[in-house]
Amino acid sequence: MVMRRESAKVRFPFVPHHGTVQEILNDHGLASLGDAYTNLIYSLYLSVRKGKPAGAKADSHTLSNALRQSGLRSLMNSRVDRHDQADAAEALLAYAWLSGLTTITRSVSILAKHDNVQEAFALLLSDAMEKLGSD
Amino acid sequence: MVMRRESAKVRFPFVPHHGTVQEILNDHGLASLGDAYTNLIYSLYLSVRKGKPAGAKADSHTLSNALRQSGLRSLMNSRVDRHDQADAAEALLAYAWLSGLTTITRSVSILAKHDNVQEAFALLLSDAMEKLGSD
Repeated sequence: MVMRRESAKVRFPFVPHHGTVQEILNDHGLASLGDAYTNLIYSLYLSVRKGKPAGAKADSHTLSNALRQSGLRSLMNSRVDRHDQADAAEALLAYAWLSGLTTITRSVSILAKHDNVQEAFALLLSDAMEKLGSD
Repeated sequence: MVMRRESAKVRFPFVPHHGTVQEILNDHGLASLGDAYTNLIYSLYLSVRKGKPAGAKADSHTLSNALRQSGLRSLMNSRVDRHDQADAAEALLAYAWLSGLTTITRSVSILAKHDNVQEAFALLLSDAMEKLGSD
């Protein structure tokens, strides 16, 4: 699975260029940064839904389920555990943002359309894949 | 201490309008969202400095010291503890961003100029105050 990133405006010089989705899903440094990114968009989702500022950590179980629901789980080795799957989801969400393929406002808008958090993240992961233009 | 926000473009409808810096510094919901925001900009700071994606939680002690160094500590009640001071710093950083007075790219660029994390956050807090236009 290869990707295009020609039209994107990369936000920071440190952002690695990955040629495949698998490379993104298995990038642990990206997952670590992605954890912070995902917690912010999840907190913004909660804030929009509640109509006032709120903050919380996105649950690993929810994220790993969202990865399965989006169909992306099948791109990973069958032995990876739930924690690695949540990391993969966080890495992909951060990569799409860092690569300039989406914005925080847009991502939160996509999430906020859904009551169900798992479904919301599954759709955001699918959106990231579309933006990455995998084929 | 009153502030202007006329020219700002508020990012989300849930963002409260605070008329004074003290209201921002003592807004616990904003601090909760600000925790996620601050961890993201701190993780981006680390990533820029290291030249590769990295993530970490901003330390409460560093943030409370940064609040003191910026001079903003004096605006709070003398009885508030270190944890509340770190919360206040996070609330202010998030408020400046949510109010459209700064961007993540700009904030990380300000932070990344400094080796010392406490000094970096103190300068970012001062920048937020300038942008808020307190007088």
